Parts: sequence; structure tokens; C-alpha cells
Amino acid sequence: MFLTRTEYDRGVNTFSPEGRLFQVEYAIEAIKLGSTAIGLKTKEGVVLAVEKRITSPLLEPSSVEKIMEIDDHIGCAMSGLIADARTLVEHARVETQNHRFSYGEPMTIESTTQALCDLALRFGEGDEEESMSRPFGVSLLIAGYDENGPSLYYTDPSGTFWQCNAKAIGSGSEGADSSLQEQYNKELTLQEAETIALSILKQVMEEKVTPNNVDIAKVSPSYHLYTPAEVEAVISRL
Amino acid sequence: MFLTRTEYDRGVNTFSPEGRLFQVEYAIEAIKLGSTAIGLKTKEGVVLAVEKRITSPLLEPSSVEKIMEIDDHIGCAMSGLIADARTLVEHARVETQNHRFSYGEPMTIESTTQALCDLALRFGEGDEEESMSRPFGVSLLIAGYDENGPSLYYTDPSGTFWQCNAKAIGSGSEGADSSLQEQYNKELTLQEAETIALSILKQVMEEKVTPNNVDIAKVSPSYHLYTPAEVEAVISRL
Amino acid sequence: MFLTRTEYDRGVNTFSPEGRLFQVEYAIEAIKLGSTAIGLKTKEGVVLAVEKRITSPLLEPSSVEKIMEIDDHIGCAMSGLIADARTLVEHARVETQNHRFSYGEPMTIESTTQALCDLALRFGEGDEEESMSRPFGVSLLIAGYDENGPSLYYTDPSGTFWQCNAKAIGSGSEGADSSLQEQYNKELTLQEAETIALSILKQVMEEKVTPNNVDIAKVSPSYHLYTPAEVEAVISRL
Amino acid sequence: MFLTRTEYDRGVNTFSPEGRLFQVEYAIEAIKLGSTAIGLKTKEGVVLAVEKRITSPLLEPSSVEKIMEIDDHIGCAMSGLIADARTLVEHARVETQNHRFSYGEPMTIESTTQALCDLALRFGEGDEEESMSRPFGVSLLIAGYDENGPSLYYTDPSGTFWQCNAKAIGSGSEGADSSLQEQYNKELTLQEAETIALSILKQVMEEKVTPNNVDIAKVSPSYHLYTPAEVEAVISRL
Amino acid sequence: MFLTRTEYDRGVNTFSPEGRLFQVEYAIEAIKLGSTAIGLKTKEGVVLAVEKRITSPLLEPSSVEKIMEIDDHIGCAMSGLIADARTLVEHARVETQNHRFSYGEPMTIESTTQALCDLALRFGEGDEEESMSRPFGVSLLIAGYDENGPSLYYTDPSGTFWQCNAKAIGSGSEGADSSLQEQYNKELTLQEAETIALSILKQVMEEKVTPNNVDIAKVSPSYHLYTPAEVEAVISRL
Amino acid sequence: MFLTRTEYDRGVNTFSPEGRLFQVEYAIEAIKLGSTAIGLKTKEGVVLAVEKRITSPLLEPSSVEKIMEIDDHIGCAMSGLIADARTLVEHARVETQNHRFSYGEPMTIESTTQALCDLALRFGEGDEEESMSRPFGVSLLIAGYDENGPSLYYTDPSGTFWQCNAKAIGSGSEGADSSLQEQYNKELTLQEAETIALSILKQVMEEKVTPNNVDIAKVSPSYHLYTPAEVEAVISRL
Amino acid sequence: MFLTRTEYDRGVNTFSPEGRLFQVEYAIEAIKLGSTAIGLKTKEGVVLAVEKRITSPLLEPSSVEKIMEIDDHIGCAMSGLIADARTLVEHARVETQNHRFSYGEPMTIESTTQALCDLALRFGEGDEEESMSRPFGVSLLIAGYDENGPSLYYTDPSGTFWQCNAKAIGSGSEGADSSLQEQYNKELTLQEAETIALSILKQVMEEKVTPNNVDIAKVSPSYHLYTPAEVEAVISRL
Repeated sequence: MFLTRTEYDRGVNTFSPEGRLFQVEYAIEAIKLGSTAIGLKTKEGVVLAVEKRITSPLLEPSSVEKIMEIDDHIGCAMSGLIADARTLVEHARVETQNHRFSYGEPMTIESTTQALCDLALRFGEGDEEESMSRPFGVSLLIAGYDENGPSLYYTDPSGTFWQCNAKAIGSGSEGADSSLQEQYNKELTLQEAETIALSILKQVMEEKVTPNNVDIAKVSPSYHLYTPAEVEAVISRL
Repeated sequence: MFLTRTEYDRGVNTFSPEGRLFQVEYAIEAIKLGSTAIGLKTKEGVVLAVEKRITSPLLEPSSVEKIMEIDDHIGCAMSGLIADARTLVEHARVETQNHRFSYGEPMTIESTTQALCDLALRFGEGDEEESMSRPFGVSLLIAGYDENGPSLYYTDPSGTFWQCNAKAIGSGSEGADSSLQEQYNKELTLQEAETIALSILKQVMEEKVTPNNVDIAKVSPSYHLYTPAEVEAVISRL
Repeated sequence: MFLTRTEYDRGVNTFSPEGRLFQVEYAIEAIKLGSTAIGLKTKEGVVLAVEKRITSPLLEPSSVEKIMEIDDHIGCAMSGLIADARTLVEHARVETQNHRFSYGEPMTIESTTQALCDLALRFGEGDEEESMSRPFGVSLLIAGYDENGPSLYYTDPSGTFWQCNAKAIGSGSEGADSSLQEQYNKELTLQEAETIALSILKQVMEEKVTPNNVDIAKVSPSYHLYTPAEVEAVISRL
Repeated sequence: MFLTRTEYDRGVNTFSPEGRLFQVEYAIEAIKLGSTAIGLKTKEGVVLAVEKRITSPLLEPSSVEKIMEIDDHIGCAMSGLIADARTLVEHARVETQNHRFSYGEPMTIESTTQALCDLALRFGEGDEEESMSRPFGVSLLIAGYDENGPSLYYTDPSGTFWQCNAKAIGSGSEGADSSLQEQYNKELTLQEAETIALSILKQVMEEKVTPNNVDIAKVSPSYHLYTPAEVEAVISRL
Repeated sequence: MFLTRTEYDRGVNTFSPEGRLFQVEYAIEAIKLGSTAIGLKTKEGVVLAVEKRITSPLLEPSSVEKIMEIDDHIGCAMSGLIADARTLVEHARVETQNHRFSYGEPMTIESTTQALCDLALRFGEGDEEESMSRPFGVSLLIAGYDENGPSLYYTDPSGTFWQCNAKAIGSGSEGADSSLQEQYNKELTLQEAETIALSILKQVMEEKVTPNNVDIAKVSPSYHLYTPAEVEAVISRL
Repeated sequence: MFLTRTEYDRGVNTFSPEGRLFQVEYAIEAIKLGSTAIGLKTKEGVVLAVEKRITSPLLEPSSVEKIMEIDDHIGCAMSGLIADARTLVEHARVETQNHRFSYGEPMTIESTTQALCDLALRFGEGDEEESMSRPFGVSLLIAGYDENGPSLYYTDPSGTFWQCNAKAIGSGSEGADSSLQEQYNKELTLQEAETIALSILKQVMEEKVTPNNVDIAKVSPSYHLYTPAEVEAVISRL
Repeated sequence: MFLTRTEYDRGVNTFSPEGRLFQVEYAIEAIKLGSTAIGLKTKEGVVLAVEKRITSPLLEPSSVEKIMEIDDHIGCAMSGLIADARTLVEHARVETQNHRFSYGEPMTIESTTQALCDLALRFGEGDEEESMSRPFGVSLLIAGYDENGPSLYYTDPSGTFWQCNAKAIGSGSEGADSSLQEQYNKELTLQEAETIALSILKQVMEEKVTPNNVDIAKVSPSYHLYTPAEVEAVISRL
């Protein structure tokens, strides 16, 4: 009765007979090709941990940035197309700076996430300045600390977002999410969360974990990217 | 004599030989994939109740927003693509605030609904600021209270709207609509409406109803989203 | 020698080898799916009567608007896509208000109809503010009373219009038009016209006629939408 | 060696290998579906006569306008898509009024015709205000009287025009043109021209000629549309 | 190895694997369907002669303009789509008038030809005011007289031009060009050139040559279109 | 695994799986259909020589311009689509004049060549004033003399350029390039270069070399196009 | 279940079902057709070395520029489409000059690289001034020296960049990268880096290395392109 699904999946922004938007679904696939990232919320703050694929020993590990600061109180981990992520992060940085300038106070984590998703939603609209002609091929874990305490958001290419206690994205996300459901509880300390994040990352990575191929950051209440020595310290606790 | 229907359904805004607009019909299908939402109008006010699909125990239930406030006297429940719904709600919030500012009084429920539908109708028009290149894949139940008393509107992706006494949308809407026709009468109290809404939602949901996986709101005459305790109280009455 | 007609019917605004514009013809089909509307001109004024399809007992009948006021001296009945009709009516309301403001007198019925058809004709032209990317899928019966007395116009999706003494549009229009030709004469009183309109509507409707599923309006010389009691009174005369 | 002609005929403005523009040729077909119109030039002025297809006895014959005034000294008869013709006529009215305003004298018939054809030629050019995305599906017989005396022009959808002594357009044009060649001479009086026009129209029409289904106009030197009584007088002379 | 040529010929402005632009070549075909035009340069000036196809005895021969004045010292004969030629000629008239106004002297024939070809070359460029979405389907013979004496240019739809001593275009151009090569020499008088032009035209036309179906013009040094009597005089010399 | 190459070659500006841009490669084919042009750099200056295809004895040889002056110190020879070359040359003339006006000194040959290539590169970009919707189908040999002495540049449709000591383009370029490599050395006098250029051209041309079917120019240090007598003198030296 | 990959690879910016962007991947292929370039970072500065393909002995080797200066403290080597690289380098030059003018200090290497990648990412976006309708078919090795000391960046057509200690791009990059991993250590002197770069280039080139077919540059801390004599000196050390 209908054409096969493949007939509907090349229009950038067209519904299939079942009401699906295939280009968005394919962009979600791009994320499943990406490296794994994990976030955990504790009462003390939020921890982010990411796998870094260092494809050559000649690459500078610190230049493979999978965790980025958005504002003093917000950071994000990413999986998928890094160049797309940079556009979103740059957009969020401008938004949070404008907010500070206009209102004299930091932007909330939810408003920042909403601003990112507004941009992500409007792909395929020719006349928007920062919008793209295809969906953004990236998922973000947004960690922040505002007047409501710590919070962790997860966004996908459709422009939808959810608030989570813990979440994994990227190629190892299925296994990592199961492990998180087993090990997570709301009473975790930040240090326990660090250990859990890295031990789960270790399970889904094919290589030995070193300060070169993982990054860890926390927001508690300020964003801090761990130094190699701090990462080494977490590794030694595993 | 004609091509099969499938030949006409990929143009964003093209009539088939029978005078149908398939992309709009497919967007309506997107809503049939969505979670169920129910609205009932009583003399005291309007009740909205929605199912929330919490796909992971690590998700923050309160961040899955399927009922949103538009203005102090208007709220809406949604089914379909949540990111699309947010664009419509944001548009309605600006319209109602502008109206208050310009005329010093709240916008009527009908005018607000009309404003939402004007935006929904004009998909595929490249030069409109907030319009999309495809139909909005979302239905709304708009509950409000104005100088004409309480009212409940239902909108679909074609930009058409109807005023209802009670209405269900989403994947369980067929069964829920039948139940509503049986149980609804104009003399219901708001409390009776709460009970009916939740008992019907319970029938169409696969899981046990808890304050985590349903949201209830009322407009009588102000918008109020129920606290988990208030939801628990309604559940206990079932 | 030529391709079959189906090869030409998807371009929005392209001639077939026989000189036909199929998208316009398909839009006309959309109207044949719509509910029936009838208009009759008498010396005293014009009567409009429409069928309202109330698909659910929970729908508010008064919110299914198939007859709308354009200006104090002009109203219209519609069949086809209601959301399209609203755009046209809103355009006509602005035009008639502007005319009153600029010239201090009401716009004539013919000028109003022309303004509506100018908009309808220019579908597919990207740079017009209110134009659509497809034909408007709606026919209108425009009833009015101006310095030339009462008049009734009929418009179709091609942007063409005709002045009529009586006319039916929508799914029951063929039968209704035959009945009108039999029963119409120029000496009808307004009351006789009401009775004829409703009795013909009754023939083409599948359900019993009630104040809930028909609307009646007159322009003589001002627009007036009948109250349920007034509709009931006409029904009782059948 | 070439594709069949049908491969080239859907691009709006594309040459076929033989150097033909098929969309223009198909628009010319649209005119062959139209009602017949006839024009004759005499020394005293120009006569236009058209068939009006009154598809229903409930239609107001005077609202089926196939002859229109452009300026006091110019009128035109049309065959094809009436809504397209209205756009052209409206354009010509503005041009002639602007000319009167700027130069204090009436626009010549040739300049007016050229202005109409400039608009007709530029279909498919997106950025012109009044241009269409397809050829105008209409032919015009333009009758006028200026400092060079009476003149009759014929335009087609390609934007080409010719000056004629007599010409027929529309579905009956082939037979009518033969009759015109037999009966026309330059010494005809205006009254003789009226009689010839109507007698030829009578031959190609399927129905009896009445003041209801034909219109006659003359420009000698001012435009005048005949009243039913004046048409009746010409009919009586046949 | 390559697709057949037909796969490349519908893109308006796309190279085939052999480096050809087929839409331009097809436009050149349009000219081969056109009536024949001939130009000859002599020391005294340039002669243009064209065939006029009078398809009906009711057509006004003088309104079939195949030779047009561009400026006092430039005229042109055309073959192909007349409406396209009018756009080019109108453009050239504005250019030559602007040149006279700006520099107080007539534009040279080469500059005028270059200006015409600049416009012809840029088809398919959406944002140019006078450009077309397809090649201009017309060839011109441009005759002029400037400070360098008489000159004759030939342009084709690709926007290329050549200076010639004599040239024929249109359906009879092949035979006419051979005859010109035989009969032309640089010492011809203007009168001899008239006779040659008309005698060659006579060979390629199917009908008897009369002042009604040919036009002759000369630029020596001013543009002059021959009156019927002057044409008759040349005919009588054959 | 991949589609055949022919599937990728019609998009104006699309990579094939092997990373090739076929429309540019096809434009390069257009040049292989063109007449041959040769350039040689000596210490005294640069010599350009071109074949001119005089298709009819009635053509004015001097109007077939294959060598053009850009500025007093720059000239260029071309092969391919002449109308495209004219656009590029016209662009370069404006650039060099603007440079003289702004900086009071002649533009260098490299900057001029870069400016030409910037324009050539940006085909397919809709919003550039002089850019084309397809690659420019022309190669240029740009000869100039600036503060760095004489120089010869070669450009192709991709917008790339190279500096050369000697270079041939067009249909005979392969054979001519081999001959140039054999005969060229940096110590050639300008007169020797003239002789080599013409003798190589003679080899690749099918006809006898005459002042009518070749053009020669030099830049040493000013641009000079040889008169027929000067060309004759070079021919006599062969 | 899915179409083969080839169905998705012609849309300029469309995801395949596996989440891949094929046009970007094909652009990366363009680089694999390019000549080899190598960069090494030492404590003293960064060395760049490139192969130059001199296809004809008549070409001026110095005009084949594969290493270019961006600012006094930044240079870059390129592989792929040279005309594309020029657009990127020109963009970077303007950015670094603007930065110096606005802030009175040189732009950092990372900011310069980010600015280049922002432009590269936004291909296919019609309304950006310098963006292209396809990905830029070029990779760059960006060498610089700023307040953080020397650094080497590598960019690809997707707009992604990485910081490296050493990196090879182009047709010989695979073999060259292996050799770099063997021979590179952070304690290399600049002179040792020169020798390694050239010896690896020698391995992947088919011809003998001469000052004509390689270029070497260093940034330590200023950009310097080696003279033929300096290149000869490095060759002699091999």
C-alpha cells in the first residue's frame, strides 16, 4: 500500500506515511558511530567522562576536545560530528554571555539547553543565520549548576531534550546505560561518580584507559576539566 | 486512471487527484505514534491529563513535559513531536504576552488557538520567520478560561481547530474517545473530571499509573500543574 | 502521442498538453469532499445555509464555523479546507476594513470578491506575503448587500468568480444545484429562501437536520448568523 | 536520436531539440478550450463580440465578463483562463492610467499591447512582481482608437502580438477565421461589422444566440459595452 | 562510456562530457524554424531584407515587424522568437539612448552589439533584471553606420557575435549564404545590394515576393525602413 | 560498489566518489574543441599567436578576436567559448582600471590573473554579481610585463593558474606543447619566439597560414596586436 | 532493507541511513589524489615540506605554490584542489589582519584554524558570502608560532581539525605517516626535522628530489619559505 521506507528518507524534512522523519533518524545513527560519553549527576555536582579516539601517536591528545566549557557553570560532552558540536557550543557560549550581559546573572541550564535545541530543530530552514541544511549530527550531555542545584541534560538531533540523573551516548551507550542503571543512586558522592563513570567507560573501550584517551570534567559548581594527573588519580582508584 | 496515491505524497504541499494533502495526513500519523493526552471541560474549569513515557529510570520524570503553560489562564497538552510543540507553545507565549501588553487584558482562548493554527498552516512557505518547511507533527489540547468561561480546543497539523467538551489525542485516542463519550456529561465537577481522565488514561497505558508517568493540570481559572502528591491523591481515588 | 495525464499533474503550476492545470483541478476535488453549502439571493437579501459535520458528540457545534462574517454587509459560506478558508476570510476582513478607513464607505461585494480571487490566483509565487505554495483548497459563497442591492458570488480555487442567483457547493452540490434550478425564482421572499435552502440541505444530508448540524445566515442588509432558536424555527417550517 | 518530445515539455521554460517551448504551446491549447471571441476593425471603429458560456440558469449573465474596458479608448475580448486575463487587464489599466498621469495624454494601442506582452513574456522569472511561474493561459483581442485611428491587436501566451483587420480566438476560431476572410473588407461600416461578428458567432455556438449568452462592445472612439437591448437589436438584424 | 547526449540536454546551463551546451544549441534550432533575413554591407551603407510570413490575409502586414530601428544609426533584422527579439531590441534602445545622454555622441555598432550579447549570455542567472531563465531564441543581423563607416554584425543565442560583409539567418540561411558568397563583392553599390538581397530572398521563399511579405531597410548613414512603394521599386528591378 | 561515473556528472558542483568535479572536467573538454593558441615568454617580452577559424569568406577576419588587450601592459589569448572569455576579459579590464585609479600604478600580472581565477572558481554560487551558473568554458594565456619583467600565465576552468615559459591551449595543444618543449629555451629573442609560435601553429592548422586566419600579439613592454603586414612579415620568415 | 549507499551520495548535505555524509567523504578522496605534504613540530619551530608536480618543463616551478604564508607567524601547506585552498588562505589572511587591527596582537594559531574550519563547515548554505555550494576539496597543514610556542594543525573537508606533532597529507600520506611515527620524537632540532621531512618526501615521490619539485618552509617564530639554495642545502644532507 505504501512505498518502502527508503523512498521517503532523502527529503531533508519530509514525513513518511508512518509519520517519521528519516533524516533525523539517520543523524541519530551518526551518533552511534561516535565515541562514548557518560554523565552522572550527584548532589555535589555533575561528572562528565568521554572516550577519546587517538588515531595516531603523533596527534596531540589535548587537541581532541570531546568535553567543552560553555560558561563558568556549564560544560558539555559530545558524541557524533565534532564540527557540528562546535557550532552548537559556540552558539551556546554567545547566548550565555549575552544573558549575563543583559540580566547580570548566569543563564539557567534549562534555558541554555532550550537555546541549543531551538537551533538544532530548525535545520533545513534556509534563512536562519546559524541553521544548517541538514540536522546537526551530534548528541550532547550538558552538565551545569545553577540556582536549582546541579543538573544534567541530554539532547538529540531532533532538537528534543531530557533531564537525566545519568546518561551515556555514543557507540557504547547501550551497554553503558545498563551499567549506569545498576550502579547509579542519588546518594553517590562526586568521587564515587567519577569512579563509576570511568569504570563503565573502561568496559566499553577497546583499549587500556590512560590520561591520553579519556577526558573527565566536573561542574561543582564551576566547570573544571581534569588535568592528566587528576585523571591518572581516578584511574588508579579503579 | 490515476497514479497510485504514493506518487503524490512526497511533495510537501501538493494536492493528490482526490484533493488530499498527504504530507499533512502523514504528520497526523506522527501523532498516532505519540503518547496519549486527554482533556475534559467542566463548568469549574478544564482538566488535562497526559501519559509520560519514561524510557529509562535515570530520566528525570519532571523534565518530560507534555503539559505546558502558555499564559496564566491557558495551558496545553500535546502529542507527537515534542520539539515541534515547543516551537508552537513559544509562539503562543509571545502572542499572549504581546496581547496583554498592547490591550491590557488577557488574550481569549480562541484567538490564541487561531494564532497557533495560523503558524501551523503556513508550513512550506520559505519566507516566514517561524514557519517550518514541513507540517508541524503535533496535536494540541488547549485548555483555557476567559471571559466566556472555560473552553477546550483541539488542533491538528493541518492548522484546523475545533472546540470540544472532551477529547483524547495520541496513540490511545480511539479507545479513550469512546470512553469519554460514555462517561462525559456537562454537569461533571472538576474532581469527577480528574478521576475520569486518569481512569481512561490508565486503560490505554501499558504500565501501572504512578505520579512519575502521568501529569495532570487544570485551568480553573488559573493554570496549575499538579504536584506529585496531588497526582497521587487522584490516583488513590481510582 | 502524449504522456498520460498523470505525468503533468504534480507540477504545482504547469500546463498539460491539453492546456489544463491539474493542481487546480485537484484542489477543486478537495471541495467535492467538503460539506454542502447553499446560497440564494432574494430582493430582500441573501440567505446562506451550510451542513456542519459534527464527527463526535463531544465537539462544540458552534466551533465548527462554516459561515463567517467578512464585514457588516458581507458574509460567506465555505466548503473544502477550513484552514485555507480562514486565511482568505482574514485577508478579506483586512481589505474591507482598509477600504472603510481609506474611503469612508463600505467596499462593494464585487471588489471584495476580486480581492479574494487575486490572492487565490497567485499560489506558487514565492514572494507574496499571504500567497500559498499550492492552490487554496476551498470554494466560497460570498453574500453581500451594497449600493447595488443584494448579491451572491461564487469563487473556486482557480481564482475565478461568478455572480449567481443561487448556488450550491461541496459534496452534495450536484443534486442541490438541480433542486435550486427547479425551485428558485427571483420573486422569492427571504423567508421562502430560508425554507428552500434548508429543505435542499436536508435532502443531501445523511442525518436528521438539527440546530446542531446546520448553520444559517442572512445579509439583509446586515450580516446575521441565526441563533439555534432561529434555526429551529426554520426547521419547523419544513 | 532525440528523446521523444514528451521529455521536454514539463520544464517551464526549456527548449526542445527542435527549438520549441512546449509549455507555451500547451498554454495555447488552453485557449482552444475557451469560448470564441471575434474582433473586426472598420474605419469608424472596432467591434468585439464574444460567446458567454452560461453553465447554469442561476448564474448572473452580466457577471461572466469576457469583454473588459482597459481605458476609455481601449477594450479587450479574451479567451482562455479568465483569472489570468484579469491579471493582464489590471496591469494594462495601471499602465494606461500612469501614462495619462505622466504625459497628459492617452497611451497608444500599440504601447498598451506591448506592455501586456512584456508581462506575458516574462513568466518563469521569479523576481518580477506581477509575473507568473507559468505562461498566461489566455489570448486577447485588443480594440482601441488613438491618434492613428482604430486598431485591433491579437496577443498569444508567448508574448507575441500582431495587428489585424479581423481575428477570431477560442474554440471556434478556425471556422470563424475562414468566415471572416470571406466576409471582411475594409469598407465595412461599424453596423455591418456588428452583424458579421454576431452571425459568425452564431455559426460556431451550439446554442441559440440571446442577449444572455453573447456580449458585444465597440471602440469608436470610446469604449462602449452594449446593453441587452442593443445586443437584441443586433440579433434582430441577423 | 558516456551517457547518450540526450541525458545532458535539459539542464539549462550544463556542460555535456564533450563540453557542449545543449540548451544553447537547441535555441539555435529555434532560429532555423524562423523566417529568412539577409544583410549586405556596401561602402555606401548596409541593406537588410526579411521575409514576412503573413499567415492570414486579415493580418496587418506592417505589424509583422522583423526589422526594427535601435537608434538613428542602427537597425536590426531578426529570425526566431519575435518576443525574445523585442526584449533584446528594447534593451539596446535604452543602452544607446543612455550612451547618447552620457557621452553626447552615438554608441558605436560594436559596443551596441556587445551590450546585446552580454544580456544574451547571462540567461539562467536568476538575479539579473532583464535576463531570462533560458537562452534567447533569436539571431540578429545588426546593421549600423558609425565613425568607422558601415558595419554588419551577426549574433547567435550563445551571446557570440561576428562582423560580416554579408550574412543570412533563418530557415533559408544555408541556400542564401551560398548565393551571397557567389554574388557578394566589396564594390557593390547600395542599389546592387538591394537587388541581390531581394533576389536571394525570392529564391528561398515559397510565395511570390510582394511589398506585403518582405521588408527592406538600409542604414546609410541613417536607418530607413522602405515604404511599400520603395519595396515595389526594388521588386520591379529583379 | 560505486555508480558509474556518469551518475555524478550532471550536478554542477558535486564530487564523485573519487573526488572529481565532472562539470569542470567537461568544461575543460570545451576548450579541446577550441582553436589553438600559443604563448612564449622571452627576456624581451611575451608573444601570443592564435589560429582564427574563418568559417565563411563573408566574415570580417578582424572581428574574430581571439587575442584581446586587458590593460596597456597585459594581453590574453583564449580558446573555448568566446562569449565566456569576453566576460572574464571585461572583468579583468575593470579590475586593472580600478587598480590604476586606486593605487596610481599598473596591477601586477599575477594579481590580475588571480582576480580572473577568483571569478572563475565561484561558478554555481547564485548570489555573486558576475559569476555564472556553470564553469567558464574557456582557457586563457595571459601575457604581461610588470615590475618583475615579462610573464606568461595559463588558466583553466577550475580557477587554477600556472606561470609558464611557453604554453599551448586548444584543439592542437598536445602536439604544440611537444614542439614547444623541443624548441623553447630562455635565451630566445622576441623575433625567434614569433617564428617558433607561428611555425608550430602552422603544423596544427589544417589550412595554409595567412594574415586572415592567424593573429599575433606581443607585450614588450606594451601590448601590441600585429597588423596584417606585420603578420605577413612573420609568415615570410617561416 | 536500505538502498545501497550510492543512492545517498549525491545530495550535497544529506545523511545516509548509517549516519554518513558522503559528499564530505568524496571530498576527502580529492585530497588523496593530491601531492604529498608533510609537517613536523619541534621545540624551535615547525617545518613544512611539499612535493610539487611539475607536469611540463615549460612550467615556472615557483608558480606552483603548495605552501603559503597566512600571517607573519603562520604558514600552511596544502593538498587537494589548489583553487579551493586559495579561497581558504585568502579568508584566513583577512581574519588575521582584522585581528591584528582590532586587538593589536597576532591571532593565535588555534583561532586562525577555527576560523578556517568555520568557513569549511558551512558549505551548501546559500546565503554565506564566502561559503561554497560543495565541501572545500582540500586539506591543510597549518604551522604557526604564538604565545603558546610552536603548533601544527591538520584540517579536513568536514571542518574538523586536530593538533599534531607531525602529519602527512595527500597521495603519499599513508606511507609518510608510518615513517613519521617511526622517526619523530619531541626532542628533534629544526634541522633534524628538515632532514626527516625531505627524506620521507623522497620515499613517496616517483622522481628525484630537486629544488624545482619540492618546497620547504619553517615558522620559527616567523614564516620563511626556503630559497632554492636553502632547499639544495637540505637535499645535500640526505
